[in-house]
Amino acid sequence: MAKLKYRNKLAEMPSYDVVERDWHIKVNANESGMNLPPLVEERVMSRLSRVAFNRYPNEDLEMLMEAIGRNFGLGVENVLIGNGSSEIIEKIFYCFGGRGRKIVFPQPSFSMYHIYAKAAEAEAVPVSLSEKDYSLDVKEFVNVVNDNKAALCVICNPNNPTGSFTSLEDIEYIASHTSCAFLVDEAYIEFNGQTAIGLMKKYPNMIIARTFSKAYGLAACRCGYMLAAAPLTDMIGKSMMPYHMNVLTLVTADTVFQMRDEFIPRIQMAIAERKRMEGQYGSLKGFKVFPSNTNFIFLKYDKAVALNEYLESRGIGIRSFGKAPLLENALRISMGNRDENDAVFKAVKAFVEEQN
Amino acid sequence: MAKLKYRNKLAEMPSYDVVERDWHIKVNANESGMNLPPLVEERVMSRLSRVAFNRYPNEDLEMLMEAIGRNFGLGVENVLIGNGSSEIIEKIFYCFGGRGRKIVFPQPSFSMYHIYAKAAEAEAVPVSLSEKDYSLDVKEFVNVVNDNKAALCVICNPNNPTGSFTSLEDIEYIASHTSCAFLVDEAYIEFNGQTAIGLMKKYPNMIIARTFSKAYGLAACRCGYMLAAAPLTDMIGKSMMPYHMNVLTLVTADTVFQMRDEFIPRIQMAIAERKRMEGQYGSLKGFKVFPSNTNFIFLKYDKAVALNEYLESRGIGIRSFGKAPLLENALRISMGNRDENDAVFKAVKAFVEEQN
Repeated sequence: MAKLKYRNKLAEMPSYDVVERDWHIKVNANESGMNLPPLVEERVMSRLSRVAFNRYPNEDLEMLMEAIGRNFGLGVENVLIGNGSSEIIEKIFYCFGGRGRKIVFPQPSFSMYHIYAKAAEAEAVPVSLSEKDYSLDVKEFVNVVNDNKAALCVICNPNNPTGSFTSLEDIEYIASHTSCAFLVDEAYIEFNGQTAIGLMKKYPNMIIARTFSKAYGLAACRCGYMLAAAPLTDMIGKSMMPYHMNVLTLVTADTVFQMRDEFIPRIQMAIAERKRMEGQYGSLKGFKVFPSNTNFIFLKYDKAVALNEYLESRGIGIRSFGKAPLLENALRISMGNRDENDAVFKAVKAFVEEQN
Repeated sequence: MAKLKYRNKLAEMPSYDVVERDWHIKVNANESGMNLPPLVEERVMSRLSRVAFNRYPNEDLEMLMEAIGRNFGLGVENVLIGNGSSEIIEKIFYCFGGRGRKIVFPQPSFSMYHIYAKAAEAEAVPVSLSEKDYSLDVKEFVNVVNDNKAALCVICNPNNPTGSFTSLEDIEYIASHTSCAFLVDEAYIEFNGQTAIGLMKKYPNMIIARTFSKAYGLAACRCGYMLAAAPLTDMIGKSMMPYHMNVLTLVTADTVFQMRDEFIPRIQMAIAERKRMEGQYGSLKGFKVFPSNTNFIFLKYDKAVALNEYLESRGIGIRSFGKAPLLENALRISMGNRDENDAVFKAVKAFVEEQN
């Protein structure tokens, strides 16, 4: 049989299989530990019950774009919605990708950046974070962007999985010393305050990506958005096919966005729990905890691999990173509810105490 | 300011704006005229109310893949799910696209094939249908595929927007005389009986695409699937990023698939209405009705443009095609409910009677 003519390099792409085991406690994906607040759930279900399932999406998409734009003092022409900020980032990489195009981002950071670059047939150019505190040397970053004539540079702020934060001054330094598109992935921004949205007007090559999956607890719905100047949304919008968003997701995200004040206590609790648990883990022998600006904590421990296996055997899912650059012996633990956090810590402490 | 380095040819892609006006009667998108059957709706809402909105999709995708595979005597490795068959087709075009790759499909057919080919940076090679009856000359089609060394060939069966049907013998002729990937888009197959799924075992390069948007009235949810041999789903699956499907869509589609017998009376009614309305339109002076195998009727009329404007002014949305090849003066009218179909016909008849 003749060989099928697949797209060049498609065979090199990884295959995905994301079915997870049933964890007793799942704190490995930076999800919110809580389902919708009751008031929000009631309104979501009421709106879902009125959806015309038989009709193609119509005004639902624009309605959410308008609501989001209005909130940030922007117009519908400054907003694009995607199936999670995943799709947003995938499409941005696609739009600045293609043969010979380079995309610069820090390492370690969101592991999917490498995959999105590959899918976009672009060359990923990672810039290592400081081994000491996982900070970003913005001068080096800018030099790498300019030396490589990058088409796109990206930072994740606060950074996943290190929890580290790049200051607005540093972000402005990047924006003012580069001329390519500059994506700031703010998936965790609600857990710390300094969004770069205010810089967009001055630096029209900036793009801000946001998600409903973390602070707003909508990971199941797959909804994210980007904010940028109209020429950017116009071009990036071309990569999104008509009807790529479904009505159920749009209606749910719109309700959550309207009622986002209901989530403030939860966000505050995640922050408080992060601080509390950073203190507790910091007191354990051999643990180095890095200050986090997110809904997870990040730490290093010589016996991280064995600890992770120990937790797995007890049905507790946290995140370890194998041999990924700069992440050896690192662990990431999402903040669940107080009881979950205590239970995870208790198991970790038991392991540590067994060690000598 | 330096010019941004967008992907080559992105600027040539169209921008999409799919917000529709509020039609009094909307029969322009081949949607089902009815929302979910009450029993199905009850079950869908009950399952939606139990979704963990805060968790990333987990076993929901595989559960639906298994259910679909089982129904066709296939395994989970033979199924991929997409955000509408739109995403399925987009990704298939991507996987066989890239510079210099050619994709052959009939013309006129689903207008998005041209866009998907462009998005995939592939060359579209359309093969004209017969001007007389919109049938496909499969010998010519096969010659074009082979002469062009196509990477992919596609037919839509039954064909949108002409309603015409390619027989299983003709499909097998294509499969047995080509060696490239061969996609049969069966978006409307439930309105006629002859699926090509039975040929897949013998011709492992075949791919069948299906949708929940038409016969199963789920256009709002964006859910479609493809069936193919495991090596094909494995490669095409690489183009689909993790978590591209949301839980609400998966749960709704799974419920509808489980309860698909509830849709049989509706499908039968759409067929009966199509036959009834074909008779009525056929009796109008100057109308040529082409026999359809779908949930819409397709006709030609010298004054189609004026008729379309007349209907628009009365809040009735049908589909006309501008100057698209072989579609001048053609109109497509989806089958709505009996009352809607009668109302549309009454308006059409009034227009015709005004003409002389």
